[in-house]
Parts: sequence; C-alpha cells; structure tokens
Amino acid sequence: MKNCNKYQRGYFMPPLTSFKWAQQEYVTTPPTWCSVDLRDGNQALVVPMSLEEKLEFFQLLVKVGFKEIEVGFPAASETEYTFLRTLIEQDLIPEDVSIQVLTQSREHIIEKTFKALEGAKRAVVHLYNSTSVAQREQVFKMTKEEIIEIAVSGAQLLKQYAAKTEGNFRFEYSPESFTGTEMEFALEICNKVLDVFEPTPENKVIINLPATVSMSMPHVYASQIEYMSDHFKYRDNVILSLHPHNDRGTAVADAELGLLAGGQRIEGTLFGNGERTGNVDIVTLALNMFSHGVDPGLNFENMLDITAGYEKLTGMKVHERQPYGGKLVFAAFSGSHQDAITKGMKYREERDCNNWTVPYLLIDPQDIGREYEGDVIRINSQSGKGGIAFLLEQHYAFDLPAKMREDFGYKVKNVSDQLHKELMPVEIKDIFVKEYVNIDNPVELVNFRFNGQEDFHTTVTIRYNNETLELSGKGEGRLDAISNALQSQLGLSYSNLNYKEHALEVGSKSQAVSYVGITGPDGAMHWGCGIHMDIFTSSVKALFSAINTMKKAI
Amino acid sequence: MKNCNKYQRGYFMPPLTSFKWAQQEYVTTPPTWCSVDLRDGNQALVVPMSLEEKLEFFQLLVKVGFKEIEVGFPAASETEYTFLRTLIEQDLIPEDVSIQVLTQSREHIIEKTFKALEGAKRAVVHLYNSTSVAQREQVFKMTKEEIIEIAVSGAQLLKQYAAKTEGNFRFEYSPESFTGTEMEFALEICNKVLDVFEPTPENKVIINLPATVSMSMPHVYASQIEYMSDHFKYRDNVILSLHPHNDRGTAVADAELGLLAGGQRIEGTLFGNGERTGNVDIVTLALNMFSHGVDPGLNFENMLDITAGYEKLTGMKVHERQPYGGKLVFAAFSGSHQDAITKGMKYREERDCNNWTVPYLLIDPQDIGREYEGDVIRINSQSGKGGIAFLLEQHYAFDLPAKMREDFGYKVKNVSDQLHKELMPVEIKDIFVKEYVNIDNPVELVNFRFNGQEDFHTTVTIRYNNETLELSGKGEGRLDAISNALQSQLGLSYSNLNYKEHALEVGSKSQAVSYVGITGPDGAMHWGCGIHMDIFTSSVKALFSAINTMKKAI
Repeated sequence: MKNCNKYQRGYFMPPLTSFKWAQQEYVTTPPTWCSVDLRDGNQALVVPMSLEEKLEFFQLLVKVGFKEIEVGFPAASETEYTFLRTLIEQDLIPEDVSIQVLTQSREHIIEKTFKALEGAKRAVVHLYNSTSVAQREQVFKMTKEEIIEIAVSGAQLLKQYAAKTEGNFRFEYSPESFTGTEMEFALEICNKVLDVFEPTPENKVIINLPATVSMSMPHVYASQIEYMSDHFKYRDNVILSLHPHNDRGTAVADAELGLLAGGQRIEGTLFGNGERTGNVDIVTLALNMFSHGVDPGLNFENMLDITAGYEKLTGMKVHERQPYGGKLVFAAFSGSHQDAITKGMKYREERDCNNWTVPYLLIDPQDIGREYEGDVIRINSQSGKGGIAFLLEQHYAFDLPAKMREDFGYKVKNVSDQLHKELMPVEIKDIFVKEYVNIDNPVELVNFRFNGQEDFHTTVTIRYNNETLELSGKGEGRLDAISNALQSQLGLSYSNLNYKEHALEVGSKSQAVSYVGITGPDGAMHWGCGIHMDIFTSSVKALFSAINTMKKAI
Repeated sequence: MKNCNKYQRGYFMPPLTSFKWAQQEYVTTPPTWCSVDLRDGNQALVVPMSLEEKLEFFQLLVKVGFKEIEVGFPAASETEYTFLRTLIEQDLIPEDVSIQVLTQSREHIIEKTFKALEGAKRAVVHLYNSTSVAQREQVFKMTKEEIIEIAVSGAQLLKQYAAKTEGNFRFEYSPESFTGTEMEFALEICNKVLDVFEPTPENKVIINLPATVSMSMPHVYASQIEYMSDHFKYRDNVILSLHPHNDRGTAVADAELGLLAGGQRIEGTLFGNGERTGNVDIVTLALNMFSHGVDPGLNFENMLDITAGYEKLTGMKVHERQPYGGKLVFAAFSGSHQDAITKGMKYREERDCNNWTVPYLLIDPQDIGREYEGDVIRINSQSGKGGIAFLLEQHYAFDLPAKMREDFGYKVKNVSDQLHKELMPVEIKDIFVKEYVNIDNPVELVNFRFNGQEDFHTTVTIRYNNETLELSGKGEGRLDAISNALQSQLGLSYSNLNYKEHALEVGSKSQAVSYVGITGPDGAMHWGCGIHMDIFTSSVKALFSAINTMKKAI
C-alpha cells in the first residue's frame, strides 16, 4: 500500500526494557474491575443512553459484580450531572460499590464535580490531562512544564475540595494519551501528581495508564507498564490501572500482558464498547481467567441475559464471533469438529471427569448459561454424520447404529446443500422419518403370526402391487424367519441383515425403535427404521422399511 | 464464578523458554499471507457459500493481493470438488496465485485430492492430523507412535501422488490442535514429517502451527513458536506458518508475537471469519503493519468495497468496532476528541507534514478509502463545539467566530439530546439557519442609506410592532452608525459589538456571510448571522439577527 511511509511509530520505548512479565505464564489474581460503560462506552454510541437506560445499565453492572463504575463527566454535561444525582438521591448505589467521575483540571469543573458528588458514600475522582507529544504540540501548544502544572494544580484542587466535602474519596490520575508519551515524561508527571496526593496504605491512589490509542504491539505496552510500575514513587500505595483501547485488535492482549507487568486494575466495558474500536472487553478478560481456573470475581453465568440487556440498552449488537458472548462461538458445523466434541462429551460422561477437556470448546458453554444443543452442534451442508446423529439423539432419542449414521449424514447434507440453509433439529428428525421410518411402499406389512413353539415358522401377510399375499418362511430367529419368507417369495436378494433396538425414552416412553440394515445386490447398505409399541413389531417394520428403501435405490 | 476449578490450563510450556522475540519492537517484514476464507471461513457460516459466491469471493481475494488461497477440502465434499474444478477448468487462477487444498492422511482421500488438482499450475497440498492430548485420548484413542504414523504415512502418500501428478506442488503439514499438544511431541512429529518431505531451498515445506483453539496467553504461544522455530530440522527450508483462532480475543496478538518468534506465514481470513470466534483477521494484521510504516503487501485502499463484498458473500456483518473496517472505528463523537482531531488536521495542513500524527486516529482514514466527513466527526449529544463547527465549515463553509461556536454547540447538543439521535451535517446547518441567519422578528430591516460622504450618518428604515420606523444615527463606521441608530431609538442596551465576515465559497460563490455578536444586559453574548450578495448588507442583517436573538433570550 502506498503511503505507508507517512507512518512513524508514534509510541516510545522505555529507557530500560525488562521482560519479567513474560516469565509469568498466566494471571493468577483477578484485577479490580472498573466498568467505564456509562462514560467511555456511552459517549461512543451513535445515540447515547437516556437517563432511564443508564439507570438500568447501572443495575446490570452491579449484578455482574462490578465494585467500581465510572458514571460520567458530571461537570461537562447536564445529562450526566442528573444521572449522578439520581443515583445518589434515589440511593441506588450499593454500599460496596464506588462510583467514579471524570474531571478536567479546571477549578470550576472540579468544584462542580464535587458538588455533583454530595451525598455519595464512596467515589473515585478521576483527574486527567493529555501528555502525548502530539497533544502537547498540536492541541495544547504547551511545554512539558506547563503540562505538568496542569496535572499538579488539578491534583491540589482535588485534595482541597475532597477535604471540604463529606464522603470517602479515592483519587485517580490518568496521563491521557499515555501511549503517545515519552515514558520518562509520563513517569515524571505521575510521580509529581503522587507527590501532591501523598498516598498511604489507607489512602491509595490509582494511576491509570491508558492506551488511549493503541499504537504498539502488546509486548511493548507491557514493557512500558513494567517500566512505570518499577519506577513509581509510593509504589506500594499506588494502584496501577490499565485502560486499553482496541485500535490494533489487541486490547485483550494489552490488558493481559499489562497485568503480568504490574497492572492491578482494569478499566473496560462489556463486550468492548467504547470510543472507535472500543475499550477492552471485560467479559473476555474475565472468562479468559476463568478458563485458566481462576475465579475472575465477576459473574457471567447468565450470558444470554447480559447480552440481551447490553444490546437493548446500547443499541449495539454483540457480534456472532465475539468471544464467549457471540451466538456462533461455541458452534461446530464441521463434521470432524462435531465428531470430536461428541466423543469428548461422551468421554466426560463415562469417566465422570473433574476437568474440562472437550476438544474445540475452551470452556463448558453451560458454565455461562449456554446449551450444548442449539449453541454447539449445528447442521449445515458442511456438517458430518457425528453431529447430525448427536442432535437426533439429544432431541429425539434416536441412537442410530454407526453405519446408519453415515447413510443418514449424506441425506441430511444433501438437503442442507439444496435448501442452502442451516437445519434445525426438528427438520433433521423430519428427514429421518421421511427417509427411514415405517416405510411401507411398495411392500406393506399387514400382519404376521408364528406357528407352533418349536423353530420359527412364520406366516406374513403383505400388500404388494395392489395384491394381498401370504408368505411363509422359517429361520433361526423370528426376524430371520420373516426375512426368509420375504426373500424367497418376493425374489429379493440381500444379505448381512443387522439390527439394533432400543426404547424411545423421549416423548413416549413405551415405544420401541428398531433399525435394520441390509446389503443389497448393489453392494450398498440400505437402512430402515420401525417404531411400534411392541419391540418385535418395530423390528419387522424396520425390516420392511429397509427393503422398501433398497427397492427405491436400485 | 463457580466451576472454575474444572479448568486446568490445557496447553504446554516448551521445555526451554526464551524471549528473544520480545526484544524486537515490531514486525518489519510482512509474512506470506494465506487466506482460508473459502475453507475455515466458509465452513463456519450458518449458510456456506454457493459455488457462484465462492467464485466471486475468490476474485475479491485475488484483488486484495493474496498469493495463497485455501479453497477447501475437495475430497470431502462434492461442492468443494466442483469449486476447485471450476477454478481450474475456467482458468480463474492467476499465474502467481497458489491454491491450497486440505486433506486428511488417508489414501483414497489423498488420491481424490490430487485428482481434483489436475491441471492446476501451482498448489499447496495441506496435510493435517490431530496431535493434542485430548484428541489422542478421547477421539482417536491412539498412542503417540500411532499418531506419528498417521502423519508420516500421509506425508509419504503426498510425495508419491505429487510425483505422479503434473503441477507445481508445495507440501504443508499441520499438527492440528497444536496448542493442546506437548511441545516436544509436536516437534517430534513435525521433524518426522520433514524427514519424509526432505525440504530443499527450491522445495521448501510449510509447517503450520495452528492455535486450533487458543488456550494460553499470547506470550506463551510466542514462546511455543520460538521453541519450535529454534528446533526444526531443515529450518532454512521450512516456512513456519501460523493459524491462530480467536477464542481468547487474542488472535491478532498471537499472530504478531508469533511472527516475532519465527513465524513467516499467516493463515487467516478477512475480518476474522472462521470457526467459532473466527480465525485471525488479516485486515487488522496487515493494517497494523501499515500503521508502523511497513507495506503489508496486501491492498486495503478500498475498504468500503471490501467490507461490502465480504458482507454480501458471507452473510456476516463487519462489526461497527472491528478495527479499520468497522463503521465507527474512526468516529469521534466526544467534544475533546473532535477538538484534538480538528486541531491535528489543521496542524498537518499548515505544516505540510510528511508524518501522520493526528490525535485519536491511528491511521489516516483516507488511506483506506474512508472520509473525514461522515466517518470521523460525528455529532450527538456528547459532542462539542469544535466538531460541530468543523462539520458546518466542511460541508457548508460557515467558519464561525470562536465564541459563536460555543453558543452554537450548546444549541446543537440540546437538539440532539431532545431528539435522542445523531445529527447529520444538513440537520446541523438547518439548526444554524433557524437560530441565527437573517432573523427578522421582531425587528425587521427594510432598508438603510447613508447621507453624505463625511462621517457615517445613516437613516435606517425598519418594521417593528407593525409600524414602519425611520431611525437615524451616526458612528465611527457604517455598522457602528446603524447600531447606534437602533440602540438609541429602540431603547436597546448592548455592548461589545464584534463581527466577522467571509465569502461563502461553497454553493454560491458570490454570497457573503457575516457574524455579529453583542453582549446583552444579561451579560451573555448573543449571536446573529447575515447572508447577502453585498458584504455590508450581510453584516447589517447579522446585526439585526443578533438583536432579535437577544430579544428572544431576555
């Protein structure tokens, strides 16, 4: 692509790079989760949420388990001011939840911010100013010293107003556009702000290092975080917070590697809503931890409710392939995947496994309130016999013999291919019934009886070519006797009769189902299925079905 | 969340971990790109593509610049067989493009695969078998030796059939489910396959290490890749390929870090279509490189055509926040972002910058065929004066004075807030006209004239309260004279008259526009705008508009 020369890498490497973070394998302790859905998320919506929608979203976040929730920029907008006042005045903030508000470093804004907070029991007051080279030069046209002065004077004002206001306030400072800032300067400004705040073990301060725009590869961001973490003053009393955006599609990785590098807190949103490409998706981060055996401290056991609420309130869609939440993320259409999943499920059942090891599924869909049927095994023209048979068994209790699955698989794939659509379980059952069950054309069973108790002598009455015929035969078993009667007196030629029977447990407990396969003169196997209250009758009906299927084929 | 204990980390660390990859800052050389849209992508669609749709998608991929395109599993499905034959027989494969086909390690399948390839000039034949612990134990119920035997015998068959078939064949081997495989075993099986293929500098072999299911953090995958890369036999003749899936939302990071760790080739799809959460998104990977000043060797200069084609053919949507391709990814609704972007654009114009440094925009939207207007500055109730004024200027050439922008900003935000919707540029212009332009109620200008040439004496005729009045006044300038006439004889009280005028270049070049602001007795500034062919008349009309606006407000 032309024009690539106009891009320099707009980020800065730390003066010292270390990779201590890379030597840890995974995140063993969940961070403090802060939702910025109602601020960063809301401001990026084509239509921002109404007051009522925000109140409902706030409840959703509380239900998921967030203990820190950024609710807006109360001094900048009347709507956000009203929202915050409603939360406080209607006493909607649980005891253990801190609200968080954003403010610029200007006295009248800070004053109005604290006024908006009156009566709030716990709040994080979040001060920010832009520190990147681009913002300093192009937007603020200020020196580094002037930029530091903005931050320091803001911090002083926060302290003053907090002292004058009743409530439990925690301070947060963000060098906004951190990822476009020289690391030494970012460190300097954070340490100067910390000098004002003088954090203590009882009054920790949050320093938030946003990837306002994600500019570097994730390991570079991690090394930036490690450098900052290693060099903060008052480090033990600083809560290092991360706020990654997804410009490069790597916000989750930025957050994860950043946590290894010293991050202790994440600012993000449900499903990654937020400015432009969005903030980091907290659902994914939390469930990634869950998949590693770590309880994330947030509850996504009712994923369908959460996606529905999110979609309703934001007007955004959760994409079909969004990790964990998307409609298709547990779906297996391909035959080999369906087969492996089916075998993996069976393996678990048989061994009563404590560990989740099913192929192709990172976590058990049921752990987040999703179902195997419907969500996992889905049937289209790419699907295989295993998945098709799995669905038929799960939904309708038909447990086909292995060879019959293959035969049925081709029939279903053909239908899906022709109709050019996904098939639902009921459609698969309909194909099964139409193709195999109680097929009585051209050879129709009228009745049969056995004569005497010794051997197996039978008389079978059938309708064939508009005639009623009585056939007789004998065999080593009763089905064998009937089969012999049909073969010898109708001039049929087949071999290798094999069959399987079981009770149909779902729907009508008392019915029996039989499957019969025969090898025809064409060398192919032909299958039939019979269903009847009587087990043996079901197998006779299956044999007639197989014979009729064969007659249709050859 | 309950149940987290059932999850063990299902991946394996390499016996030696090194982090050489982490010491590189970014990817300086683009990999070979292989599209698997028509195989992995297609098989994950609820409704797979028809033959015609596949042919059109193939053309789209060729246009983007892919030189390797996986077209399916021709021995497994009649549809895919037909697709491949159509490509070959209708001569649709450009000289420099290799098609790639997937095959299991079974002789009748390999035989059919080569039959399907007859007449193809260049092809990659991609052999795979599953190697993970879960698949070995649960699905195949085989020992490691038996799994190796599957791979080795498949490789031997590939070699035999390739020797018998005309064409230029490259071999590829994937230890499927690599991320669930012990690294030593993955290495062993790859090296045994390489021993069969005996790659040379002229006949390199692709070893593809898929994150069939992404299970670990990205740096662990990178360390796995580095271990494999460091220990392959025939390393110089091996092309190390990566095929990450997005289960953990980190496919882009896996691919990027994997490239630093030795990866030379990427298998992925447009916009991350593919099984479950999808394959790695090649659009994002390529444009991430582009944003670092590296030409990715693929062309996304017409992003809108590509997203439209993709959506039409797959039936999937590109999510609004999908990096680079999503509708909202360059959008700035918030006032401070709009202001910084506007200033950043101006900075570039003024300095004729060679480098792209505009805040909040990782790349120049125009480089991928997207526009500043419409895509970037968008107006809702969260927006600020800067963005609103920017749109008004870009679309309608009104260049408001700074203080008027603020006044107008509030009016627009109120409308957006009340209507609860995004405002288009034409709606913003309509608000502007309604609020400021040629406002003539209650004080209407009829005409004015100046007497004599010395000083500025005026007679102004107006309609006011259903009366026609003649006012006279004088001043230091002509507008001042008219203002004085109005103030003294209508009992108006305002001060600090200031104004700005310019030609309206867009639409009707000959019109002039003037903006007048006055400070009313309420201490607030009130604004008016006048448009007229005559410059001075436009300023008089602006003054009348400002007076009427003030009268409405107080």
